[in-house]
Amino acid sequence: MARARVYVTLKKSVFDPQGNTIHDALTSLGYDRVADVRQGKYFELALPDVGADEAKRTAEEIAHRVLSNPVIESYRVEVEP
Amino acid sequence: MARARVYVTLKKSVFDPQGNTIHDALTSLGYDRVADVRQGKYFELALPDVGADEAKRTAEEIAHRVLSNPVIESYRVEVEP
Repeated sequence: MARARVYVTLKKSVFDPQGNTIHDALTSLGYDRVADVRQGKYFELALPDVGADEAKRTAEEIAHRVLSNPVIESYRVEVEP
Repeated sequence: MARARVYVTLKKSVFDPQGNTIHDALTSLGYDRVADVRQGKYFELALPDVGADEAKRTAEEIAHRVLSNPVIESYRVEVEP
């Protein structure tokens, strides 16, 4: 039972209005040592009966084709066997 | 410069309609070895001039108070010094 975790974030050069709004909220709540916030998405895929290598390959393909927009987002995949 | 990563997911007992929709889409695209999908949120907080321990404490407080709804969501914090 492999479990793949996919993290999708906006590329560094892309403006992140949600992250900025959270940053403003944190500043107004007194968390003034937080310099920057970026928001992203997180997915957990359960792949039973699939080996770690194949799970990683499948999850990367899914991340690229379905879960992210490669024009403005980048992704990272971790697999737990 | 500490960087905190906060992962927020729905608790196991909470129904995840977004994850189910993604699962259905993956099945119809032929990824039929994916048994389950859960969607969550991901945040990166930049805390310059803050030590790793304090960054972790601050990020956990922020995760609990601001970034998650502890009634239905759980969170995990990782700090990179």
